[in-house]
Amino acid sequence: MTPATGTGFAARLDAALHDTDSLLSVGLDPRAARTPLAQLEDFCKRVIDATAAYAAVYKPNSAFYEVHGGKGIDVLARVIEYVPAGRIVILDAKRGDIGPTAEAYATAAFETLGADAVTVSPYLGSDAIAPFLARPDRGAFVLCHTSNPGARELQTVTVDGEPLYLRVAGLTAAWAVANVGLVVGATYPDAVARVRARVGAIPILLPGVGSQGGDVEAAVAAGLDANGRGLVVNSARESIYAADPGAAARDLRDRINAARAVRSAAPGMGR
Amino acid sequence: MTPATGTGFAARLDAALHDTDSLLSVGLDPRAARTPLAQLEDFCKRVIDATAAYAAVYKPNSAFYEVHGGKGIDVLARVIEYVPAGRIVILDAKRGDIGPTAEAYATAAFETLGADAVTVSPYLGSDAIAPFLARPDRGAFVLCHTSNPGARELQTVTVDGEPLYLRVAGLTAAWAVANVGLVVGATYPDAVARVRARVGAIPILLPGVGSQGGDVEAAVAAGLDANGRGLVVNSARESIYAADPGAAARDLRDRINAARAVRSAAPGMGR
Repeated sequence: MTPATGTGFAARLDAALHDTDSLLSVGLDPRAARTPLAQLEDFCKRVIDATAAYAAVYKPNSAFYEVHGGKGIDVLARVIEYVPAGRIVILDAKRGDIGPTAEAYATAAFETLGADAVTVSPYLGSDAIAPFLARPDRGAFVLCHTSNPGARELQTVTVDGEPLYLRVAGLTAAWAVANVGLVVGATYPDAVARVRARVGAIPILLPGVGSQGGDVEAAVAAGLDANGRGLVVNSARESIYAADPGAAARDLRDRINAARAVRSAAPGMGR
Repeated sequence: MTPATGTGFAARLDAALHDTDSLLSVGLDPRAARTPLAQLEDFCKRVIDATAAYAAVYKPNSAFYEVHGGKGIDVLARVIEYVPAGRIVILDAKRGDIGPTAEAYATAAFETLGADAVTVSPYLGSDAIAPFLARPDRGAFVLCHTSNPGARELQTVTVDGEPLYLRVAGLTAAWAVANVGLVVGATYPDAVARVRARVGAIPILLPGVGSQGGDVEAAVAAGLDANGRGLVVNSARESIYAADPGAAARDLRDRINAARAVRSAAPGMGR
């Protein structure tokens, strides 16, 4: 899945969402206890085959490959390569380091593994994220408000009258680059709405629907951009370990699209 | 370097610092441009051989192995295995993820790779760090105040009248576990002193001396615990790419120990 030369990341992501008529991301997160190394590659490829008609994005989480050592990393590279053209691969790695180390992580994600985008942590500041934004055809999604209970410990502390996660959203918007996105958990739809209001058209990656309890309809309504896109809704366990991963992906895509239809019919759309 | 059964991480780290009479950590961070994959393992093992008499800790940064793909990860595991008994290996990976993903990262660091400790990000909150603290004989160092310029963007915002990094230090201390440490950059000795005053005996990992500009004497004076230990001073480029890595490591160990001697002779020591 090598991108067409000269096409920026934002345009590639938007084309994937538009052309597939889907905001669905399938999280390729196979648990070692259920999917041992010997089955890892076939398992992921079968999930991709079953879901490719319904997914715009695939999001493998690096942890589930790293746990298998070097062989797991080699599988990850082959799984990323296997994703069909026209889809986006977001490597969920939540990297964050400084200077030459961040450059090495970016090279690992984009060149060694071939991902289109990577998730990154904001805690170290802009200079730790810049190396992930140095390739215009590749992108980075900055953790803003995560889907877990602990999100309320640091991300919502009040800084100058607003929660820290909105400070992160504002900093990210201030970079004014076309290849950055934000991660906001579906379990906090109010946070999704506040981030969307703050950042305008920046794409939002929305984990946490399904087993984590995020409400699809509320989160989609809160997160869509003015074009009814700009949002990537990730589902992992519920899709890949479903009895029929294709049917599960199709059903979730349809629920997301139904929520989009409601939103686009609502007053106030198109702000 | 498998730990003795039943020995907790804090005791193992303290024993390494005491028995080697050194607070030095050698950062095993070989740059791909200078050290290609074919030379990676030999290079790291030669650095370990040359510095083992002077280092209490080795700190490989995962990025510099990940950039080489699966083969790089396999080298990393063998390099960690090669570290002599009685030394501590801190895998600098700055991981941070939730629930089962954090558990997979912890398994990757401690079991797949065999590290004694790992660096983790605080942005996602306590539940994202807990899986790294679940093995009493292994530890986690939480990013608190990093050594880079961007540290001033989020880490020093004011929350309830104090900088965010002290909030992180306070949360970490409140867990009251024996196997957690903090990362505080040597480039900000005032932050080192404030963290030490806040957390009592929690070990501090101090990156950023040497090429990043951190002043060894100031940072050591600020960071020592009441026993004159509790501090790990990391040096990477200056050690591993020195003309004589052993001599560079010995010289830095001696400078650190001279600063310890000054501190222990100063009034107020032993608070």
